[in-house]
Amino acid sequence: MNNMKLFNDPIYGFIQFPYPILYEIIDHPYVQRLRRISQMGLSHYVYPGAVHTRFHHTIGALHLMTEAIRILRSKGVEISDDEAIAASIAILMHDIGHGPFSHALEGEIIHVSHEFLSIQFMEDLKSNFGKHIELALDIFQNKHQKLFLHQLVSSQLDMDRMDYLSRDSFFTGVVEGVIGYDRIIKMLNVRNNELVVEEKGIHSVEMFLMARRLMYWQVYLHKTSVSVENMLRKVIRRLKQLLESDDSDYYSSLLSPSLSFFLCNAITADTLRSQKTDIIEKFSKLDETDIYYSLKNLSECTDEVLRFYSSSILNRRIFKVEHHDEPITIEQIEAIKSKLLKTKTVTMNIIEDVILLSEESNISYNTKKETIKILTKKNEVIPITQFSFNLIDTRLINKFFLCYPKIY
Amino acid sequence: MNNMKLFNDPIYGFIQFPYPILYEIIDHPYVQRLRRISQMGLSHYVYPGAVHTRFHHTIGALHLMTEAIRILRSKGVEISDDEAIAASIAILMHDIGHGPFSHALEGEIIHVSHEFLSIQFMEDLKSNFGKHIELALDIFQNKHQKLFLHQLVSSQLDMDRMDYLSRDSFFTGVVEGVIGYDRIIKMLNVRNNELVVEEKGIHSVEMFLMARRLMYWQVYLHKTSVSVENMLRKVIRRLKQLLESDDSDYYSSLLSPSLSFFLCNAITADTLRSQKTDIIEKFSKLDETDIYYSLKNLSECTDEVLRFYSSSILNRRIFKVEHHDEPITIEQIEAIKSKLLKTKTVTMNIIEDVILLSEESNISYNTKKETIKILTKKNEVIPITQFSFNLIDTRLINKFFLCYPKIY
Amino acid sequence: MNNMKLFNDPIYGFIQFPYPILYEIIDHPYVQRLRRISQMGLSHYVYPGAVHTRFHHTIGALHLMTEAIRILRSKGVEISDDEAIAASIAILMHDIGHGPFSHALEGEIIHVSHEFLSIQFMEDLKSNFGKHIELALDIFQNKHQKLFLHQLVSSQLDMDRMDYLSRDSFFTGVVEGVIGYDRIIKMLNVRNNELVVEEKGIHSVEMFLMARRLMYWQVYLHKTSVSVENMLRKVIRRLKQLLESDDSDYYSSLLSPSLSFFLCNAITADTLRSQKTDIIEKFSKLDETDIYYSLKNLSECTDEVLRFYSSSILNRRIFKVEHHDEPITIEQIEAIKSKLLKTKTVTMNIIEDVILLSEESNISYNTKKETIKILTKKNEVIPITQFSFNLIDTRLINKFFLCYPKIY
Amino acid sequence: MNNMKLFNDPIYGFIQFPYPILYEIIDHPYVQRLRRISQMGLSHYVYPGAVHTRFHHTIGALHLMTEAIRILRSKGVEISDDEAIAASIAILMHDIGHGPFSHALEGEIIHVSHEFLSIQFMEDLKSNFGKHIELALDIFQNKHQKLFLHQLVSSQLDMDRMDYLSRDSFFTGVVEGVIGYDRIIKMLNVRNNELVVEEKGIHSVEMFLMARRLMYWQVYLHKTSVSVENMLRKVIRRLKQLLESDDSDYYSSLLSPSLSFFLCNAITADTLRSQKTDIIEKFSKLDETDIYYSLKNLSECTDEVLRFYSSSILNRRIFKVEHHDEPITIEQIEAIKSKLLKTKTVTMNIIEDVILLSEESNISYNTKKETIKILTKKNEVIPITQFSFNLIDTRLINKFFLCYPKIY
Repeated sequence: MNNMKLFNDPIYGFIQFPYPILYEIIDHPYVQRLRRISQMGLSHYVYPGAVHTRFHHTIGALHLMTEAIRILRSKGVEISDDEAIAASIAILMHDIGHGPFSHALEGEIIHVSHEFLSIQFMEDLKSNFGKHIELALDIFQNKHQKLFLHQLVSSQLDMDRMDYLSRDSFFTGVVEGVIGYDRIIKMLNVRNNELVVEEKGIHSVEMFLMARRLMYWQVYLHKTSVSVENMLRKVIRRLKQLLESDDSDYYSSLLSPSLSFFLCNAITADTLRSQKTDIIEKFSKLDETDIYYSLKNLSECTDEVLRFYSSSILNRRIFKVEHHDEPITIEQIEAIKSKLLKTKTVTMNIIEDVILLSEESNISYNTKKETIKILTKKNEVIPITQFSFNLIDTRLINKFFLCYPKIY
Repeated sequence: MNNMKLFNDPIYGFIQFPYPILYEIIDHPYVQRLRRISQMGLSHYVYPGAVHTRFHHTIGALHLMTEAIRILRSKGVEISDDEAIAASIAILMHDIGHGPFSHALEGEIIHVSHEFLSIQFMEDLKSNFGKHIELALDIFQNKHQKLFLHQLVSSQLDMDRMDYLSRDSFFTGVVEGVIGYDRIIKMLNVRNNELVVEEKGIHSVEMFLMARRLMYWQVYLHKTSVSVENMLRKVIRRLKQLLESDDSDYYSSLLSPSLSFFLCNAITADTLRSQKTDIIEKFSKLDETDIYYSLKNLSECTDEVLRFYSSSILNRRIFKVEHHDEPITIEQIEAIKSKLLKTKTVTMNIIEDVILLSEESNISYNTKKETIKILTKKNEVIPITQFSFNLIDTRLINKFFLCYPKIY
Repeated sequence: MNNMKLFNDPIYGFIQFPYPILYEIIDHPYVQRLRRISQMGLSHYVYPGAVHTRFHHTIGALHLMTEAIRILRSKGVEISDDEAIAASIAILMHDIGHGPFSHALEGEIIHVSHEFLSIQFMEDLKSNFGKHIELALDIFQNKHQKLFLHQLVSSQLDMDRMDYLSRDSFFTGVVEGVIGYDRIIKMLNVRNNELVVEEKGIHSVEMFLMARRLMYWQVYLHKTSVSVENMLRKVIRRLKQLLESDDSDYYSSLLSPSLSFFLCNAITADTLRSQKTDIIEKFSKLDETDIYYSLKNLSECTDEVLRFYSSSILNRRIFKVEHHDEPITIEQIEAIKSKLLKTKTVTMNIIEDVILLSEESNISYNTKKETIKILTKKNEVIPITQFSFNLIDTRLINKFFLCYPKIY
Repeated sequence: MNNMKLFNDPIYGFIQFPYPILYEIIDHPYVQRLRRISQMGLSHYVYPGAVHTRFHHTIGALHLMTEAIRILRSKGVEISDDEAIAASIAILMHDIGHGPFSHALEGEIIHVSHEFLSIQFMEDLKSNFGKHIELALDIFQNKHQKLFLHQLVSSQLDMDRMDYLSRDSFFTGVVEGVIGYDRIIKMLNVRNNELVVEEKGIHSVEMFLMARRLMYWQVYLHKTSVSVENMLRKVIRRLKQLLESDDSDYYSSLLSPSLSFFLCNAITADTLRSQKTDIIEKFSKLDETDIYYSLKNLSECTDEVLRFYSSSILNRRIFKVEHHDEPITIEQIEAIKSKLLKTKTVTMNIIEDVILLSEESNISYNTKKETIKILTKKNEVIPITQFSFNLIDTRLINKFFLCYPKIY
């Protein structure tokens, strides 16, 4: 029995969960590992307060789920204890498959999505938590009949988004991300098995969508963050090359054992399926301390490119970055290369390795997905884009990023 | 030239510093390293939000120093630009000597205080920042004639305490630590070369002292934190033993190179003085990622004690803890041992290693140190304990802690 | 049926009450009148944000009561719906007897305490709300067997104090009043029919007592507030004199009808008992707009003293104020008078009327009243002063105030 | 000389102004009167915390002006002390012409706009504050050469809007109005004599526009507020009718002298110009306490309509309200009338007086006015609608409101 019954959350105050099994799952090493995975990866290089963890986010999302279930039940929506537990487990584990630096390294260390990994982790826990995990998996994968439970876990207005916007805005100090999560949750209801928001909450949802859009461009896709993420990806990619070279033992010795394993073995969905227990066990040992540990070793290694990037990341010497509306052209790249050489910012040796490109896009409300629905005072259910008299931005915005060393 | 001129602090809002040299120092790897040293060590196991870094605290303290200097100047206190820069550097570097998990491991990894190390770091930077560092060192060590500048850096009402109380209370969500730093700083003044607080700020100072006292018992010396800190110290001490055994190579191979170096070589003030550059360089590579990396390896090592403690820390299986007003007796310890054996909580093998003891004390206002002085409306300077009509708690509180595995 | 089910409170967020009858009572004109009685009277002359109303405080205290009942029930304390409703009504009506400017004018307009008036108001509502009011009166007057319900309404740790400290600190911006109401309420329990606080909440209670003490001296008894309150009392006292003179019709015509009634008729507990319905009805028409309306008329009246004070209050020309530890002596008063005359600050005409005296005292924790009790982990109930290892200030502090016109 | 040098603002903390003359103006009765004019009128019937005053808003806007001037000067924008003082006075007085319940009664009590009245008030103070007021008037009326100073006082991104959004959102608890005023002000600059926002602040401006839009519909034009404002306007209009009847003396006697004067004399711009000093003097005596005083008398008067509305407003019995996209038709009105009669909600006597209509519109960003301009990193000045890649809602939204008594 766990006696840690009350969490002090700087955002929500004292929070507590109604089912003991949730505390048991929180105590599991798989969830505790999320203490070593930060929620916002390298964003702390821009926003020094943004060092909160996925563990903290998970606890927060679980709290919002608890609140949402309480509100829905108070409005007569039937949710059994088993369903409530399962929905809670689903949100508690929705991020459990994240690796170090989450999105920045997604697909680089292991060749499956973090959602896929979350499912593997959950399946791995079936032996411990039995039927509860099974129902949680159903809800997570939208196989349970009550669609609205899935929507609380994963939709355009889920508890995940609600918590991360609130939390990231709190820890960064960016007020543009402040949302009325309290009001939105109090206005949730269910019609035709789907989650709806009562009309009185419409402006809070509009603000939520706007806040999400702005947080992407102000914070998540902040130019400096994108730049340092590109730099870190470059390290991983370079490493993978060198680990296939003759010096692979040397480079492997500079990495933590877990990181070495995943970079030397390209794990795909297939390998994962065939050796699940083993790989999940190994992946569960991998966290951001492995990356930092390895970067410190690499910053003194023999490869100039790795040395340059590793020490730059560790000491926050971040590349300059431009964003463009159109793909970067070869001419633009060549122009920068000659400038870097002319100013002796970098040497010929590494010139081919110091131009980093990436593409980022965001859509704050996607009309092609399940829509957010408003329950009007006349008891009609209407998609928000039809009901709102304020503009809702549904466009996909795409940007092309070009990063290279600062020229002094 | 650094172009990162504006920090977004979730507590103070947008902050900026008036001297370019401060940005240069912030950019130095020695300061950037503080991004990998957390401000509150293992407290995040109690307060999940408490993962902010010493880097963030340092930036905050520097902001408060900037404010204090601005206020004092506006009241006619003479502070030259050189003095302002030096006082700013002194606060910026006051914590630079902290190692991983700061107080929890102070004296365990390196046998000198963190203040002593901060001074070595500063001296190491003389070559880069010359006279500014020298004056900063004078202020830091109270060798500069303007005593009040030293007091801003280090006294019972310094910018360090002002920031850490505000920041730790913000990130933990513990409102008992909220203080009126804004009012206190606005009420600062100087008389007879000493820092004083104008009468109108007295209640804010009283609250500051109370908040500091309560934060110690509610947060810094929280039983769970003390327990996990004792557990971590046990790991380090056990390691030092084993590194002197025949298996030293094996245990050394499980540690990060930096940690291994310091645990294998007992560095004292003398060794530090004789090989300063080298050791400072090495110490600057050591941070909390070394500890976590090592703990992960140790959690699978051959030594049962290390394995037990390492995996317990990583997975938050924290010992039960009692605190007592009197030293723990041998009888108390023996009683617990037999209970642990009888309940089969631990085996005979490790029974001698699972009782941890420590002593913690706190005094929120020490009348034996330099006192906090109030400047009355009649322009008199009076120690706060004489002027206040509210009780100020000046007692030293001492507690004895006894930690051991939870019995189920 | 009222459909205003959700209050948006800037402190607590969205709040809601579980019993419809509470909304009916909130809607009653007696409660709505509290919208025109400010919580902090004339303090807004010092803290411009402090214009919140007794209505808002009442709603807040009701919310905390709702929370406290929910927590106690979750710990197995038996509270029937009727008791919960009655305790809620008791807190909802605890301030209903306040007249304009509450404490500043207590005993000046009507010669009974506001608690006595609250009881009369409640009795007047028996016809509307029957047995619920009767039980509420029992709880309010400590005649109900469950002592702890009375303690939630009125004790040294009641929902009234908890809300007003939080609220006043929020609206003034004085952080010294911030308390951990959330934690205290979560730690409430009942033993031997009495309210106790579980050991884990002790530091929050210590901080609550300190915060209350400091709020008195920083805010409630702020010198400027005391001064303007003395000035307002002077207006009322002067008016009562003149209303007994030959010009009583003239002065009466300058007042609102309600204020005129009470100043011309010295209502005591006896008159109130004999003509309750009538007087309660009249008193319910009296609020702060009557005072401001009358002050505006008086600022142009023929009496120099009234004119001087009324326009001074309206235009914030507040007397200078000194506070002393000893009673003010005749010599001190005479010295000030001659200074006022010599500097021609006031004329001989009104010199006898421009020295105002008052005495104020505060005790943040009174050991002679029912004590706050701590429930230890060993399940013992111990008074906080015996259990705490931090100092708790239990002294009565007394100050003598001397106010007179500013001399330029 | 005033010694109240430091305001404690719950939003901005401790604030101070650099020019003594500003304190003198704050102390003037014309400004002090704003303590009796609430910022949000009757909105406190929906949001109980929304009782803050125009005085408080004015102090806040002055603080933001002080900050904006400091930032612009630090970027090399030339602003002389005289200009800084005048711009500060202009913002300090921008609302001084507001009467009781501001917008709700604009044009009902006096037949000129509040801006026109503000100008009259300022001209009246020329004798006290001379050239400073004259320059302030030039800036206020956009006659001064430095356009950007006028824009700080009055434009689509002025200090007025910045403060009222922040303040109203703080006191109501509506987070949808939270804006990054701090960031926007730090990003202000001047190009071609016009205010611009540096590119880094663009998302904060986008959020500001969205927040303003949502605050209108969520708060300022909240249906309940619109309804009670219509009810108050009805009282004033009915009064004006009756004051022209034979019973005018009777009705006049129920009003405060100031209100009576303005309702009996239709003051226009012409009368104001011809008897300025007299009328400004009289208007400066009129505030919200006159309205509440009069409503209390009217709630017991002989006219059924006045009685009905006055007591309804005082006791918060607010009409039901519908809003429509199209003008209300006669058929809709007649349908409601018969329903009211059939349900005996009101009698035939007053049926013609219980249907209230109004039209409200809002545009959060008006492209037909001076645009908000962005200063790009390439030093170009581009209108925000061209530069932003997020949608900016520039549409005028119009709603038709229909209010009538609740039917039970």
